Amino acid sequence: MAYFDAASAAPLHPIARQALQASLDEGWADPARLYREGRRARVLLDAAREAAAEAVGCRPDELIFTSSGTRAVHTGIAGALAGRRRVGRHLIVSAVEHSSALHSAELHESAGGTVTQIAVDRTGLVEPSAYAAALRADTALACLQSANHEVGTEQPVAEVAEACRAAGVPLLVDAAQSLGWGPVEGDWSLLAASAHKWGGPSGVGLLVVRKGVRFAPQGPVDERESGRAPGFENIPAIVAAAASLRAVRAEAAEEAPRLRELTERIRVRVPQAVPDVEVVGDPVRRLPGVVTFSCLYVDGEALLHELDREGFSVSSGSSCTSSTLTPSHVLRAMGVLSEGNVRVSLPPGAAEEDVERFLTVLPGAVAAVREKLGAPVASEVAREEDVLVVDSLGKRCPIPVIELAKVIGDVPVGGLVRVLSDDEAARLDIPAWCEMRGQEYVGEEPADKGTAYLIRRVS
Amino acid sequence: MAYFDAASAAPLHPIARQALQASLDEGWADPARLYREGRRARVLLDAAREAAAEAVGCRPDELIFTSSGTRAVHTGIAGALAGRRRVGRHLIVSAVEHSSALHSAELHESAGGTVTQIAVDRTGLVEPSAYAAALRADTALACLQSANHEVGTEQPVAEVAEACRAAGVPLLVDAAQSLGWGPVEGDWSLLAASAHKWGGPSGVGLLVVRKGVRFAPQGPVDERESGRAPGFENIPAIVAAAASLRAVRAEAAEEAPRLRELTERIRVRVPQAVPDVEVVGDPVRRLPGVVTFSCLYVDGEALLHELDREGFSVSSGSSCTSSTLTPSHVLRAMGVLSEGNVRVSLPPGAAEEDVERFLTVLPGAVAAVREKLGAPVASEVAREEDVLVVDSLGKRCPIPVIELAKVIGDVPVGGLVRVLSDDEAARLDIPAWCEMRGQEYVGEEPADKGTAYLIRRVS
Repeated sequence: MAYFDAASAAPLHPIARQALQASLDEGWADPARLYREGRRARVLLDAAREAAAEAVGCRPDELIFTSSGTRAVHTGIAGALAGRRRVGRHLIVSAVEHSSALHSAELHESAGGTVTQIAVDRTGLVEPSAYAAALRADTALACLQSANHEVGTEQPVAEVAEACRAAGVPLLVDAAQSLGWGPVEGDWSLLAASAHKWGGPSGVGLLVVRKGVRFAPQGPVDERESGRAPGFENIPAIVAAAASLRAVRAEAAEEAPRLRELTERIRVRVPQAVPDVEVVGDPVRRLPGVVTFSCLYVDGEALLHELDREGFSVSSGSSCTSSTLTPSHVLRAMGVLSEGNVRVSLPPGAAEEDVERFLTVLPGAVAAVREKLGAPVASEVAREEDVLVVDSLGKRCPIPVIELAKVIGDVPVGGLVRVLSDDEAARLDIPAWCEMRGQEYVGEEPADKGTAYLIRRVS
Repeated sequence: MAYFDAASAAPLHPIARQALQASLDEGWADPARLYREGRRARVLLDAAREAAAEAVGCRPDELIFTSSGTRAVHTGIAGALAGRRRVGRHLIVSAVEHSSALHSAELHESAGGTVTQIAVDRTGLVEPSAYAAALRADTALACLQSANHEVGTEQPVAEVAEACRAAGVPLLVDAAQSLGWGPVEGDWSLLAASAHKWGGPSGVGLLVVRKGVRFAPQGPVDERESGRAPGFENIPAIVAAAASLRAVRAEAAEEAPRLRELTERIRVRVPQAVPDVEVVGDPVRRLPGVVTFSCLYVDGEALLHELDREGFSVSSGSSCTSSTLTPSHVLRAMGVLSEGNVRVSLPPGAAEEDVERFLTVLPGAVAAVREKLGAPVASEVAREEDVLVVDSLGKRCPIPVIELAKVIGDVPVGGLVRVLSDDEAARLDIPAWCEMRGQEYVGEEPADKGTAYLIRRVS
């Protein structure tokens, strides 16, 4: 069994387990109480806060513990927006932020605020100048992840922070994916993170608000955690979170290059071993343990099942694995193929032999899924004037692309294929297929039903 | 050492510890994932939900886990108010609810809603007819605790639920203090609770929303827990919470009468052993493990320190122990003495000999504090016409009451004492002293500085 989905949740670090068990006896009481058990709990909480602050690179009184990374992002964005309400209600986020940030932005917009989404390039990277250009007199807050959770691309946080600082706008950094590897560089103003991403327990996030940043906590008043995180403190889990953060940091110097080498093998060897694969994300500026690729003509969910049967736990941003039937917003923003998408995120300590076995097993797994999909239900194919029409209405990804691939050879070079599809993933995957195959993507237009995608055969 | 503050937080139940440790290995992965580790986590989460729902007496799909009892109350009130926004924006709460409910009400009021607070009698009990009378055509929600957290008084939830049901208004029950002892009776609509109050771990609350109750979650969208509790599920803690709820329920039949007998000893014997004590809260309709009393002429914080030195951990609703220097809103709403307030809340398994030792130690501890306060700084005492004036300006509780007690014998029967005080606690404690001492409390009036309290000597 090999668990390769550390970007979702890392298994509990041994130090986290020890710290949790030890503090169950000492950390259950109310740290606001003056009696012995309360004082003990307070000592543990204070020590955990100091350890976490040291790892982050902030003052202990700038750091609070929340009940999750998602809560840290929600609380940070809402509090910073409210604190700077008089400045204005403009919020900047990148297009590839975690859903906790994007959903916060949606809520802000529905409440009358304005939001600018910063686009990314094909590797998932934002351009610092795009942030600089988006800053306005009424910008209350800008948000940027330190590294992307789906493709591992590391963002130029320090440069963006500098642009924000120059404009007097606070920058909130979602450091959920990177904090275990090291502190976030640059002069950011707020930072959010999640303990279970670095091997800490579930139930602990952290939010840092630098002194001097205007911040107005939202929701009912509560005196816990400087009034910024309501509810009784979960001290045993907080102690475990802080202890494991120190532990993974101590191991990072050795573990980061080791995982980086393992993911580099996947980056290089998957396209050699599997035809029609696109490795996505920045090849250099990336998290040590994350590598993501997409396989043409593959149903992501079926591939995950194949890999699970072989003992590999990975995740996918394909539409086929999502309850909403829309592809990952990250892959969409990058404009890369989403079908047959696989994210491998190695936890610290991942075994080299498991990675090698994954590389051995993957080609067969992909081939098996492609074979099953190889005979899709027949489409009505009809020539209208000089255009070959493929009716893929009612069919889900990757069928529309499979049908396109099957007929592209039936039109002469210069001829057009018109794919009718009502699957949202086609909008992403058909242009991506054209790019991978060197065909020309002409564009889309509304059809009687769904959307018509026009492709010109150029080779 | 005897920990007598279970109403703040109960020590971890052995079953909670076992369940937590066992599920650290199985429950850390993302339950939304389809691979083996995710499926295992999902199985644990589903089983915990079923167990908790059975203990509450609801359907599993009506129950979600939150990160604390406070969050459950915040989420429940906000979601129910928003869900019935079209009906109106009137909210009913009792005056003795937990601060999480009262702070939610304040937020609602500051956002333009209206709030009716239902008064309680001297035992802390609400009158069901008062709820019935407060229900209006625009009432969106009513809230009532199952039992009070400071004095243990059990509320007539079933009768209030019936009145609400008749008016078509949902009732949210804060069952934080009682759920470990048994399900909440009556036809309530929403219920909130907190695991660390029944011996579960910190970091878990639960919120039940009955089918058919209109509910609109607030805050950014998140798909976890039916969209009602954002953030990664804390499954090991949830499993431990559910397991310990079942365990304490199984022990309740034996433990409840045992604790009730122990707290009854305190109720009866403290007033015998300590002069000038008022036991507060309903003598019959009360939680098994909670008993609260107030001691005249005593500084609550000093008494807590004395008791802590003797090895007893208790809490206090006295103003002197609070950072805000105002007495507990519960004691204030009941109109009982707040000075020298002590809450004893026995955890399951509390030893009889510890209770006996507490009863032995308490009189000396109270006497020691009274002795220290026995020589308060001299007040300017001056006769103005027929009134003896005591200037207690700038002095904190319990000094104003001590000074009143010292001079009441200096005026003839029928004569008046006028106490000048700027301590908020005096407003509560001077009338309470009059009631305990059989003197007449005439009333208060604004003074040049602070407030003047008028007392007539009648005996």
